[in-house]
Amino acid sequence: MQKRNLADVLDRVDELWAPKKVADLNDYEVKVVKVLGEFVWHRHDETDEFFYVLSGEVTIQLRDRDVALTTGDVFVVPRGVEHCPKAAIEARLMLIEPRGVVNTGDAGGDLTHAMEDLT
Amino acid sequence: MQKRNLADVLDRVDELWAPKKVADLNDYEVKVVKVLGEFVWHRHDETDEFFYVLSGEVTIQLRDRDVALTTGDVFVVPRGVEHCPKAAIEARLMLIEPRGVVNTGDAGGDLTHAMEDLT
Repeated sequence: MQKRNLADVLDRVDELWAPKKVADLNDYEVKVVKVLGEFVWHRHDETDEFFYVLSGEVTIQLRDRDVALTTGDVFVVPRGVEHCPKAAIEARLMLIEPRGVVNTGDAGGDLTHAMEDLT
Repeated sequence: MQKRNLADVLDRVDELWAPKKVADLNDYEVKVVKVLGEFVWHRHDETDEFFYVLSGEVTIQLRDRDVALTTGDVFVVPRGVEHCPKAAIEARLMLIEPRGVVNTGDAGGDLTHAMEDLT
């Protein structure tokens, strides 16, 4: 395993909402993603989803509340809970999930991305 | 689950090498820790260990090389690999491991800490 600098990785990413894998942790994957605008409502029935804000601001919309996150914030969406991230300014996130989790969960659609492996 | 700001959490931590749990992710734990000086050589036979440098600099000594990490770097120590972190200046780290992993792995000793749960 080589170290990876997440800022350096993200400096080379243009595409929004397209996670890139930067490391494996047992059967989990560590990913980074740039986000701007609104994603799609979805849930992951099989797993919690870890968010860490590297820079910028992102709001995790839940059905009963909004969770406003800024740089340095951690938030875990529990399994089965519907959520929809949105970002008024560009944000950079670290995501950690079990291998094979799809970004759009149960929703599918145009924002579903085959994840690029940068490890 | 509530969001947690890792800088705010660490501002209230004085103790070195004493991980604090800030979130659960399935059967994994997300922890933060302040480090300075040298830890103890150890390994975790049952799991990889995830390091993310929130601030400062830390070197993960392996038996065959040193991995020098700075702010924004990710590094995963593979399971079974002996390692010994050291920091010449204070560093703040995020660690992620399966629940119940002990900070000193197989080594034990005075630096072994019962982890405080801040979730």
